[in-house]
Amino acid sequence: MRIGIISPLEMRVPPAAYGGTELIVSLLTEEYVKRGHEVTLFASGDSITQARLVSVCTHYLRGLNRDKSVLEMLNAVTCLKHSHEFDIIHNNTLLEGMSIACLTRTPMLTTLHGNLQGDWRLLFANYGGWYNTISRSAKSLLPEKDHFAGIIYNAINIKVYPFNGSVNENYLLFLSRISHEKGPHLAIEVAKKLKMKLIIAGNVDIPDEQYFRREILPKIDGNQIKYVGEVDFNQKIDLISGAYCLLAPITWPEPFGLFMIEAMACGTPVIVLNQGSASEVVENGRTGYVVNNIYEMADAVEKVSEIDKWACRKHVSDRFDVPRMADEYLLTYEKILQDSAVIID
Amino acid sequence: MRIGIISPLEMRVPPAAYGGTELIVSLLTEEYVKRGHEVTLFASGDSITQARLVSVCTHYLRGLNRDKSVLEMLNAVTCLKHSHEFDIIHNNTLLEGMSIACLTRTPMLTTLHGNLQGDWRLLFANYGGWYNTISRSAKSLLPEKDHFAGIIYNAINIKVYPFNGSVNENYLLFLSRISHEKGPHLAIEVAKKLKMKLIIAGNVDIPDEQYFRREILPKIDGNQIKYVGEVDFNQKIDLISGAYCLLAPITWPEPFGLFMIEAMACGTPVIVLNQGSASEVVENGRTGYVVNNIYEMADAVEKVSEIDKWACRKHVSDRFDVPRMADEYLLTYEKILQDSAVIID
Repeated sequence: MRIGIISPLEMRVPPAAYGGTELIVSLLTEEYVKRGHEVTLFASGDSITQARLVSVCTHYLRGLNRDKSVLEMLNAVTCLKHSHEFDIIHNNTLLEGMSIACLTRTPMLTTLHGNLQGDWRLLFANYGGWYNTISRSAKSLLPEKDHFAGIIYNAINIKVYPFNGSVNENYLLFLSRISHEKGPHLAIEVAKKLKMKLIIAGNVDIPDEQYFRREILPKIDGNQIKYVGEVDFNQKIDLISGAYCLLAPITWPEPFGLFMIEAMACGTPVIVLNQGSASEVVENGRTGYVVNNIYEMADAVEKVSEIDKWACRKHVSDRFDVPRMADEYLLTYEKILQDSAVIID
Repeated sequence: MRIGIISPLEMRVPPAAYGGTELIVSLLTEEYVKRGHEVTLFASGDSITQARLVSVCTHYLRGLNRDKSVLEMLNAVTCLKHSHEFDIIHNNTLLEGMSIACLTRTPMLTTLHGNLQGDWRLLFANYGGWYNTISRSAKSLLPEKDHFAGIIYNAINIKVYPFNGSVNENYLLFLSRISHEKGPHLAIEVAKKLKMKLIIAGNVDIPDEQYFRREILPKIDGNQIKYVGEVDFNQKIDLISGAYCLLAPITWPEPFGLFMIEAMACGTPVIVLNQGSASEVVENGRTGYVVNNIYEMADAVEKVSEIDKWACRKHVSDRFDVPRMADEYLLTYEKILQDSAVIID
């Protein structure tokens, strides 16, 4: 199949550090190339890929003082300019790809990686292409609309996540963007309640700086509660492998939560608040616990030793490995092409 | 001719108050309809026009707590979706219209109403359509690029501006958006130097609020220096007609300056700092003075009585009336259509 993939430019593909969408884009792109598909990736110029790379900028945009709207728009438009070369366009942006979908005859699938808010709902209402979500929960938050292509769960390349079968009671781990939605302030409460160590890892985005300074920074003592900043892949693996369990005290309807499958892949159980996709990603009582409040979360930590670490990894390899995700997307593309052949004159 | 016109959605067409681009869009649209052209206007739903109006929102966006980027984009895309119905598209936006020009075969003319800054230059470099500027000065700030369609000065409908031939030494007038570029702080200095009254009229946009509070508000005494806020059309005419002269102490390369031709149309001389289009719009010594600094501006105020008020009006009716502007745009459209017939297969 000839596939054009639009990535956000926020991070390179694959991301150097935090960047869930760019990671999924990378995993799909490389898997498609491996299977012999003809893939063109529209992403930042420092992306690393076996596919044909087309870029409107040499460097990814996070941290740069540039007008992102212009570059993100040019990136999506560049893909559409090439659209006659593709059987399908897989769009991973919101405004940029979705707003212009109607200007090409090549069918478009948009993956909604995040939740729609405010005027994104208007954009969604005006969008004529196909779309998929990354969990049942994310789908349930959308208004009813034609051209829903299904739920396709995210995945990771499980081979690069080493399994650690030994139990460590060293510390609890929080691993996510530091923001109110991800709930590191609640992780701190749980750790204090249990008098256990907590390591917090993750980047602080500009809109979350005030939250970080007010809610998190004063509680960091460098001993019981440690903050190690944004970590790279190897540091992340070390942190996960050494942890007793991962705390995911999310306070918003998380559309998927890649960090949870990363932890389980290494054999580290996950205790997650029952929000969004939590119960779709973590199997309660088997790969961790899905709990209703931080009191239950603290109780659950004391039952972590009952979780079989190998079951955690198996859960990820059975459900959240790349070949399954790529199969589902390719099948979806084919379904869309069949439908489009009928609908488009 | 079948013309599709993309307006910004910031203000309705014509604007209720401040909104230079939307005013020009309105004047052109209504003049084209009067001349028998088939015009479709893509603008906010509360716009008032004899043309066919297509809208993605019921109300203009200024002051609304909405994601403007989505609506502005949908507005431009809606025009392109209809583009087979038009001989030409006249785009009056930056990102929205320019970024997608390459996705239609209908030729596009973009009028650059403002100055390009930052990544707008990248947008401009990637834009494949035709463009015009509204002054020689604005053109001189652009990098060299193909498909330049010429300089077309803005205009007003001079009939609706009453002429006042009597000289009033009442007050100096500042009439513009309250921002550092427009220089109301310098107008205050000039008024104080001359011990004359000054009336300041104009809106304060959100990015200019700090400037207003620091540089302007403390100097308003309600007697010598008055601030009357944003004014409607009738209030504007009253203010202009009663003024001794208009001060335009602009500190940036003003691309045109509609407020200057509005003043001269009423017979009110304009004293302007020599920036941007100043010397293209004001005829030095005949319709006001083009000066180099605020000392010269103060000296010029004392020579205002030497200016023939009727010459001010005649200058505007000769050069800046609507029929001339419409003629030039229509001629430009035709030139573009001829060129496109050759270039596009």
